[in-house]
Amino acid sequence: MSQTPLLEPRATLVPAAEVAGRLAGLQAVLAARALDAALIVQNADLYYFSGTVQQSYLYVPVEGEATLFVRKLAERARLESPLPALVELASPRDLPALLAERYGAVPARIGLELDVLPVNDYRRLQKLFPQAAFEDVGRDIVRLRAVKSPWEVERVRAAAAIADEVCGLIPGILREGLTEAEFAGKVEAEARRLGHEGIIRMRGFNQEMFYGQLLSGVSGTAASYLDTPLAGTGFSPAVAQGVSFKVIGRGEPVVFDFVPVREGYIADFTRMFVIGELPGELRRAYEVACHVQAAVAAAVRPGVTCRSVYETALAAAAERGLAESFMGHGAGQVRFIGHGVGLELDELPVLAASDLELLPGMVFALEPKFVLPGLGAIGIENTWLVTEAGLEKLTLAAESIHKVG
Amino acid sequence: MSQTPLLEPRATLVPAAEVAGRLAGLQAVLAARALDAALIVQNADLYYFSGTVQQSYLYVPVEGEATLFVRKLAERARLESPLPALVELASPRDLPALLAERYGAVPARIGLELDVLPVNDYRRLQKLFPQAAFEDVGRDIVRLRAVKSPWEVERVRAAAAIADEVCGLIPGILREGLTEAEFAGKVEAEARRLGHEGIIRMRGFNQEMFYGQLLSGVSGTAASYLDTPLAGTGFSPAVAQGVSFKVIGRGEPVVFDFVPVREGYIADFTRMFVIGELPGELRRAYEVACHVQAAVAAAVRPGVTCRSVYETALAAAAERGLAESFMGHGAGQVRFIGHGVGLELDELPVLAASDLELLPGMVFALEPKFVLPGLGAIGIENTWLVTEAGLEKLTLAAESIHKVG
Repeated sequence: MSQTPLLEPRATLVPAAEVAGRLAGLQAVLAARALDAALIVQNADLYYFSGTVQQSYLYVPVEGEATLFVRKLAERARLESPLPALVELASPRDLPALLAERYGAVPARIGLELDVLPVNDYRRLQKLFPQAAFEDVGRDIVRLRAVKSPWEVERVRAAAAIADEVCGLIPGILREGLTEAEFAGKVEAEARRLGHEGIIRMRGFNQEMFYGQLLSGVSGTAASYLDTPLAGTGFSPAVAQGVSFKVIGRGEPVVFDFVPVREGYIADFTRMFVIGELPGELRRAYEVACHVQAAVAAAVRPGVTCRSVYETALAAAAERGLAESFMGHGAGQVRFIGHGVGLELDELPVLAASDLELLPGMVFALEPKFVLPGLGAIGIENTWLVTEAGLEKLTLAAESIHKVG
Repeated sequence: MSQTPLLEPRATLVPAAEVAGRLAGLQAVLAARALDAALIVQNADLYYFSGTVQQSYLYVPVEGEATLFVRKLAERARLESPLPALVELASPRDLPALLAERYGAVPARIGLELDVLPVNDYRRLQKLFPQAAFEDVGRDIVRLRAVKSPWEVERVRAAAAIADEVCGLIPGILREGLTEAEFAGKVEAEARRLGHEGIIRMRGFNQEMFYGQLLSGVSGTAASYLDTPLAGTGFSPAVAQGVSFKVIGRGEPVVFDFVPVREGYIADFTRMFVIGELPGELRRAYEVACHVQAAVAAAVRPGVTCRSVYETALAAAAERGLAESFMGHGAGQVRFIGHGVGLELDELPVLAASDLELLPGMVFALEPKFVLPGLGAIGIENTWLVTEAGLEKLTLAAESIHKVG
């Protein structure tokens, strides 16, 4: 037995064939864009293309073998990554010479993740490669990652199973008089026990999320800086979202909007709970949310655009008279009904007024929700896989307003 | 009562005098650097300079009144921010015209947070202000934020109190046979109940942290991509840090390295637990960690450099023969002994080989730790305030190896 265990024995490693397929996809992008190479540096992308997250640069030439240059920790990268070419890097300054040595030349046209790379880091790379031209490949990578392999779908399914299992424990946890914070803590503890990794990666600048939104009653009506239909007050203006010290009362809608993360992969999920009975107005809004979900599920097939799906949802909410409270209220209303999930919470496809076409293998969370001022928020959310035939649901917990006590 | 509560009733608002003082500090930087203005966009900086975190641009002219331009959510910004000048912004495209209208001209030299701003967002601003020159003020802001006001010190103290309180609950939680994940979940639930905000903001690209590191035995010896002496295996290579399914056993060092966050402010803290008795080698290393802490505490006063503090710590570890295992082992060893904390976990001062001088009001975590391959990790960490007289400790839980069972 090693003196320094670097791998959790139950951990799943990314198979070599997965990484090979993904790199081939990126190389096709590089060829189409007449780039010599890409230099990948962001955590989620590093995991996707190399199977490991290190302080590292993944160099992907337009043709031939990729090399992972690792500053910290090479020993761990060797255990985790299926890539055969792994080089220890003492300093980023050594990168140009190492590339010239391994590949015969320093690349002239380099793709970078300019959607996430900070300007100062970019300028350091410009100094390292003064002759090179840099182009953004971040958006291309996001499009590649939007279509999941069967292996990835299994990972999302495994994440979804955490949400389903925790959901089943809530009747034993939720009770009148708990604060949202107490309730959230107890639920989150169950998720941790099951292997929830905690960190929810998001690609967008300034985006941040902690387990989702467990909100009760009027907390569900508080919008925020987030691009989400529900946000909550949070504990303070510093992190003005999420749970607060509000006490959960009888007859309030309790939104269990939960983001499970297992082995890097994310699902997204909402179920409704109530202690006692909900007011009729909320029960009716829940029925409309289910109606919207069904309308979208019937409309999705490969080749339809996000726009058409979005418009289907808007029409389904409007025909039941709830357009004004759909996906938020007033200035808090958002202009989408769902979003891709995978290694990040904010992936493609965004189900909004976009011309992106849905493809088999895309995985998204569809979240028709209503915000009724003074009453609370209510809705349903599932994670779905686009298949040749339409949609398959990956989050499986029973859909109803779950009554507790 | 409003139909849409946007503020947790117990939330603390940033006082107007705080924000005024901070803006004056930034304006002095702008004047010294001959910049016309700064445009602040990052969450932690927005909170620091405006008291609210919105989808917004905070425009700070070198002289005169700052304006917060808010896309989402103006209603909430008005409740939270003490700034009188708040303008709703329908689109970032409107920004140049609005600035010309309010300030008489579009700025020619603009400071931006180029240490965190992604390249594509930067390019959008370049297109909005085609005549402007942009300079990095991110590093200046980090330096300003390193010195805390008395109000901020109270916020860090309040965060530290969560760690102290949770620490006191551990004897009732920790027991043989729990997995690290179960143990962490139960502890984290207590922190949530007390108001832990969950999200731990970090400034560095790719940096991520979830509650800290609750590691037992050999888990404490697993280094990672993180710039931390301890990391853990995590559950998977996707998030290769933190707790795992490892079962906590008798006689193992249990590292309770915990990052409390309350109302945006962060502290950092480590205490040691053991079920039963620790091997003598670890007990001795703990004594050396306390010796290093005492040596540093005796050496710090305003005006000393981070380098001299760092060297004091290295010498104190080396004189007891533990240089090789200090702050990690082998390739996992890190070259610092502490770091500033505040609105972000990775603030200045970094207690490393740097010429930065310590000043009254700086707040840092000092974390002398040892990694003993095959045995585990051990150490002590407190959050300290630099005072005119030296140091004041902000994390107050008893320092000893806490025995449980």
